[in-house]
Amino acid sequence: MTHFKTLAAAAALTALPTLAFAQDAAPGFDEIGPYIMTTLLFCMAGFLVFFMAAGFAMLEGGLVRSKNVTMQMTKNIALFSIAAIMYWIVGFNTMYPGDFNGYFAIGGQTVLDAVGVSAADAALDYASVGSDFFFQLVFVAATASIVSGAVAERIKLWPFLIFVVVLTGFMYPISGSWQWGGGWLSEMGFSDFAGSTVVHSVGGWAALAGVIVLGPRLGKYKDGRVNPMPGSNLALATLGTFILWLGWFGFNGGSQLAMGTVGDVSDVSRIFANTNMAAAAGAVTALILTQILYKKPDLTMVLNGALAGLVSITAEPLAPTLFGALWIGAVGGIIVVLTIPMLDKMKLDDVVGAIPVHLFAGIWGTIAVIFYGEASLMTQLTGIVAYGVFTFVASLVVWFILKATMGIRVSEEDEINGLDVSELGMEAYPEFAKG
Amino acid sequence: MTHFKTLAAAAALTALPTLAFAQDAAPGFDEIGPYIMTTLLFCMAGFLVFFMAAGFAMLEGGLVRSKNVTMQMTKNIALFSIAAIMYWIVGFNTMYPGDFNGYFAIGGQTVLDAVGVSAADAALDYASVGSDFFFQLVFVAATASIVSGAVAERIKLWPFLIFVVVLTGFMYPISGSWQWGGGWLSEMGFSDFAGSTVVHSVGGWAALAGVIVLGPRLGKYKDGRVNPMPGSNLALATLGTFILWLGWFGFNGGSQLAMGTVGDVSDVSRIFANTNMAAAAGAVTALILTQILYKKPDLTMVLNGALAGLVSITAEPLAPTLFGALWIGAVGGIIVVLTIPMLDKMKLDDVVGAIPVHLFAGIWGTIAVIFYGEASLMTQLTGIVAYGVFTFVASLVVWFILKATMGIRVSEEDEINGLDVSELGMEAYPEFAKG
Amino acid sequence: MTHFKTLAAAAALTALPTLAFAQDAAPGFDEIGPYIMTTLLFCMAGFLVFFMAAGFAMLEGGLVRSKNVTMQMTKNIALFSIAAIMYWIVGFNTMYPGDFNGYFAIGGQTVLDAVGVSAADAALDYASVGSDFFFQLVFVAATASIVSGAVAERIKLWPFLIFVVVLTGFMYPISGSWQWGGGWLSEMGFSDFAGSTVVHSVGGWAALAGVIVLGPRLGKYKDGRVNPMPGSNLALATLGTFILWLGWFGFNGGSQLAMGTVGDVSDVSRIFANTNMAAAAGAVTALILTQILYKKPDLTMVLNGALAGLVSITAEPLAPTLFGALWIGAVGGIIVVLTIPMLDKMKLDDVVGAIPVHLFAGIWGTIAVIFYGEASLMTQLTGIVAYGVFTFVASLVVWFILKATMGIRVSEEDEINGLDVSELGMEAYPEFAKG
Repeated sequence: MTHFKTLAAAAALTALPTLAFAQDAAPGFDEIGPYIMTTLLFCMAGFLVFFMAAGFAMLEGGLVRSKNVTMQMTKNIALFSIAAIMYWIVGFNTMYPGDFNGYFAIGGQTVLDAVGVSAADAALDYASVGSDFFFQLVFVAATASIVSGAVAERIKLWPFLIFVVVLTGFMYPISGSWQWGGGWLSEMGFSDFAGSTVVHSVGGWAALAGVIVLGPRLGKYKDGRVNPMPGSNLALATLGTFILWLGWFGFNGGSQLAMGTVGDVSDVSRIFANTNMAAAAGAVTALILTQILYKKPDLTMVLNGALAGLVSITAEPLAPTLFGALWIGAVGGIIVVLTIPMLDKMKLDDVVGAIPVHLFAGIWGTIAVIFYGEASLMTQLTGIVAYGVFTFVASLVVWFILKATMGIRVSEEDEINGLDVSELGMEAYPEFAKG
Repeated sequence: MTHFKTLAAAAALTALPTLAFAQDAAPGFDEIGPYIMTTLLFCMAGFLVFFMAAGFAMLEGGLVRSKNVTMQMTKNIALFSIAAIMYWIVGFNTMYPGDFNGYFAIGGQTVLDAVGVSAADAALDYASVGSDFFFQLVFVAATASIVSGAVAERIKLWPFLIFVVVLTGFMYPISGSWQWGGGWLSEMGFSDFAGSTVVHSVGGWAALAGVIVLGPRLGKYKDGRVNPMPGSNLALATLGTFILWLGWFGFNGGSQLAMGTVGDVSDVSRIFANTNMAAAAGAVTALILTQILYKKPDLTMVLNGALAGLVSITAEPLAPTLFGALWIGAVGGIIVVLTIPMLDKMKLDDVVGAIPVHLFAGIWGTIAVIFYGEASLMTQLTGIVAYGVFTFVASLVVWFILKATMGIRVSEEDEINGLDVSELGMEAYPEFAKG
Repeated sequence: MTHFKTLAAAAALTALPTLAFAQDAAPGFDEIGPYIMTTLLFCMAGFLVFFMAAGFAMLEGGLVRSKNVTMQMTKNIALFSIAAIMYWIVGFNTMYPGDFNGYFAIGGQTVLDAVGVSAADAALDYASVGSDFFFQLVFVAATASIVSGAVAERIKLWPFLIFVVVLTGFMYPISGSWQWGGGWLSEMGFSDFAGSTVVHSVGGWAALAGVIVLGPRLGKYKDGRVNPMPGSNLALATLGTFILWLGWFGFNGGSQLAMGTVGDVSDVSRIFANTNMAAAAGAVTALILTQILYKKPDLTMVLNGALAGLVSITAEPLAPTLFGALWIGAVGGIIVVLTIPMLDKMKLDDVVGAIPVHLFAGIWGTIAVIFYGEASLMTQLTGIVAYGVFTFVASLVVWFILKATMGIRVSEEDEINGLDVSELGMEAYPEFAKG
């Protein structure tokens, strides 16, 4: 059987390197195998983390009220798309800048390997630029998704998206370069394997700043009471959680950054097992704890417990034993159950629990590294504080500028009517009567 | 471009094996390639099967009434999490116990390979422990998910979860060891490639015992008539079915247990093609059969037909031709269409059709092995009966103990009001008016 | 630890090739590595594209009115299943027929490689038949899904499914062979990497013919006005879009058809990055454009904009730079926003926007190849016209025959009551009151 599903152009473009291989002694799998496997790891982990965009959308869409679901969907698909573009224009090369002073640099556009790159021109000890870029850009989108949930149900669309431009093009890549770009925190020995701090806390700090500047939803805190505003679709929220859990295998597993040796592929699998264990422990802990505290298990707490377990293990998913992953994740679950009401007491209205899950559990996970890794508590705290101060202050500034210029919050009437009708003119569930 | 996304601690930990490689003659891809590919197979198949947890949740959440959706979500995320923990504590090493008498053994905690394990210390002829453990634990969770659907809409949360503890920590691993742990059924020549019996029938028997002990939902069988209780969200149920179908490529494909040779990777792809064909055949058969029998195609039967096709091919997804997969799956579809009403006649109230899909089609698939494999009918029947007797009796005992001690069924009033409000105090769709 | 999860039969079957390996000089990874990697690529890309079936179902289920959701689910799972069977019976070997005249041939059933195929008997320079067949069959299903959305809400189930039989068994494979089977268009130098024309335009032409023959939904165009009929579940539609986006990494990435060299795996990753960029650009463009044109961003346009970006890059996802992918995708987004109202002006009632997304953006993508590939505009236009004329005419004929014989449209009363109740007797959301 003949197969011709290659376009003539590509054939022509790839002909040269293929010839080159044939003429030189073609490099064998001992030389190219690791590059192929690691590039594959990034592609595979990348599509898993990409799917987390859908997970965040479903989780948030399920936890907001039905009158704001179209807005939540719009924000989530738009933020991912913006992140993809900003990270190409400036983010990726800002974050991984090569020679720089270790604190601050702005990079230019990402340039991929040539089509059909030859072994001689490829980074054989690592992976293709395309795979690395794709893997890193789905991370930055996750950071922006975290913000999206916390500020839901009262923020205007365009100011939010402008914030996303700044976050994904500048704030995240600059601070990310301190650690993953080989900057000062990396030099100091700070340890954050897949980003409990670099990704999740950063998203959490940006969200916290947004929640403070925005203020709570109308009627959320009234006469000293917290008025519950239940999510409109818990099946959707559960689906979102499962999708995020799935994506996390790519998030943590891909952060091994190599799959071409016995040690690396085994480590990837070790990370899978630990990641799963931490999520399970976070969920079970939240289940039991809400039964004890409230006499009834609370599904949204269980979902957030699983996510908190995942965030907690993200700073060090490799070194712990399965038991280590269990207790690190369980503490994450406890943190979520205890801090969600705490935020409400402070009248910080985080619609989906993003700050407890991503910021508080992210801090915990970064500290927990000291029990299994070689990082010192002081170094870990330095990193936590550095990311916190930079992201929180920069976010506050951006949110305030947006508030002062175009305004960030819809009118009271629009908020009551729901953002779907007022801002977008399109209901998510137009046929279902409100009960 | 430099990349430093490795934490110092991990670098330190992996430094030693890397050095060891450099000093010895590093093993080449001819030696380590199969280990890398098989470990990758388990990771990839594992995340696909993991996602089946979401598939079961969506399928079941779509087929129950809206007043019980939050409970179904809670049960599904909790059962997965409990299965993950129990399988680590005792299940995995019970199921794959090494030297034992072939009938019964209880293992201890799972211990993963060391971080950055060297080729010398790894099981080069197989795969990393972490990948194998992860792949096996997502299987046990599937078994528990099967039970969850059948006993929906009237069972209490905690007794159900205690049953899951026993099922995933003990019942499934013990009986699983008979075949996949190299026990007596394996020695006898029983054949069950990916678990039509070991996984699906076992879940089905446990579900059947639960359905009998629980009794039917209030009003389901009244005055000699079967009262239909339609699922609340067929879009969700369809999504769940597609997710399960997707996951099944991992379920059956990963059960090849090797991907590092031409024969093995080709077999994995052969299994993909056959698995897909059986599902398609089950769906089409159910579509045509319900058109003939009821004059109208029945979507829930089509969904269950696809799933029955998948269960049917699971005992032998490799050996059949595509035509073999077609007719084996088609018979699965017929079984489901014919036996779902039969169960109702026996007043066995299986909410989602789990028993026809997983038990009846599972038995059929295990028998169908004789047409393409080398197993004898007697051996296959022996295995079917052995798993049936053990699982059904053990499940009955556990369900009766739970019933006698804490009770397994909610009160009539709570059942009428729905488990979401009565047991959990949280509706899944609080804003949608009931029609 | 010992593992015995291999059934005796399979062990017996695989024993022979294994022995053969041991006796000959077993081929090393330099020889078999590319085959293993490419077979894996097809399996992985295949399951991603498989999942697009769920994506189409959710997208379409979210964009139709709630009274037609069960029908849309039934059509989508049935069409995938039928496509799988037809492509096995005749499609695959019609499309990749080996020696033929380049214009027309009908092939026979697909036959997979033997179980445990040896390196000597495998196509070492390509991949296993099972993986190739699986990858190609999920493509044909996508074509049929495109039609399903356009003709929604008024077509009868069985005539639609008969159309799917003809489309997936004959029309798509015959025209597909012109390009991917090495036929006359391939010889002429036509370039369509992953199928902007071969898959998407073909689906679009078939849909256009169906929409013309069927006529618009009752009340859609009344008194010279276009009556909006909003989708019933935009969360579901968004989920479907994200799933399609995810699947597209397999759709385009897998179309590299090789992953076993540095150049090929790098190209796969390059395709991932470009595919993602085009989708992001399409979404952002539609967001901005609807804001400008209508003063309010339109979520359904944003979703279709992302999909149009994906279709646009599908004809050449490899050669463009990231900037190239950006502007090609952006033009796709513009096309969708401008042509969806245009179709309405022509009273062509395409329920989900399938024709703008798959046909118009598909044509654009096929033309855009000339900017980065080596194909000439004339050749590209020749291909576009050839696929258009063949598919549109053949589809018209089939639709007219179906209309003349069994009728293709439900009665007015049934359409008003909804297809779920009238055709299937089963509502998708039976408990939710209509608002």
